Amino acid sequence: MTGFGIIEAGSGALRYIASGCVKSGKGDLALRLKALLEGLNEVIAEHVPVEVAVEKVFVNVNPQSTLALGQARGTAICAAVLAGLPVAEYTALQVKQSVVGNGHAKKEQVQHMVKRLLALPGDPAPDAADALACAICHAHGGRIGAFSTRGLRMKKGRLV
Amino acid sequence: MTGFGIIEAGSGALRYIASGCVKSGKGDLALRLKALLEGLNEVIAEHVPVEVAVEKVFVNVNPQSTLALGQARGTAICAAVLAGLPVAEYTALQVKQSVVGNGHAKKEQVQHMVKRLLALPGDPAPDAADALACAICHAHGGRIGAFSTRGLRMKKGRLV
Repeated sequence: MTGFGIIEAGSGALRYIASGCVKSGKGDLALRLKALLEGLNEVIAEHVPVEVAVEKVFVNVNPQSTLALGQARGTAICAAVLAGLPVAEYTALQVKQSVVGNGHAKKEQVQHMVKRLLALPGDPAPDAADALACAICHAHGGRIGAFSTRGLRMKKGRLV
Repeated sequence: MTGFGIIEAGSGALRYIASGCVKSGKGDLALRLKALLEGLNEVIAEHVPVEVAVEKVFVNVNPQSTLALGQARGTAICAAVLAGLPVAEYTALQVKQSVVGNGHAKKEQVQHMVKRLLALPGDPAPDAADALACAICHAHGGRIGAFSTRGLRMKKGRLV
């Protein structure tokens, strides 16, 4: 399961285009990565993004999980590379700082800010929200707290 | 740096075709994975293999290394998938058992057996030897010790 989020970042406000999750399905590893690659190819073909951003994440549960994450991440980057798209990477800290203004913001705060910044009518799925947050971070050049104070009341980096 | 090894497994003995390493070069992650993907695409285009086997390995040094390995591995599997090739996976234990007859064989023993089984004139590079060993394991259906006693003197799973 790999979340994706697509936004339009022109001269004005950010605009939500699409988000969702690509399921890698079941079966052996090659089949799962194939499903992921094809799913991401479809998303790229449909929405024709011009740049890709991926989050630098660790699943520090065990090496098996980290390996699986790396394989999915390598596959996602391959999908971007095959479409000739440049790929930027941001740490979770950078994403949170850019979106919430606090690198240690909670998941719910990130989701809330994603919803507000993109004027979404409802909450996106957690994986999709993470992907949209990464896209927002990229749209602002990974700048720290780029949006943190725009019309929002913040206190110690948290929304109040 | 990703080792590869290509062998022909017909009705008779195994035949060495090619081996080497694809360098992923320098630069950011996407560029390195791109170089790896393109390098493997070239190897596949040149030698037209019909099946691919990859080793299930862990680098248990730290999560960063495991993630990097996973990304390279995901990319290698993407190269196979894009060429429509089936991918098999074998653990290091299976590979060693199949090639040396001892799942806990040392690296040098594996290299030595790869050299003998494929009648190589010299030692292949370590990464290439590992890849050839994995190919040999696959050629024998991952069977344990498939070749361990063919004209070789073994004692407790070691060559004597």
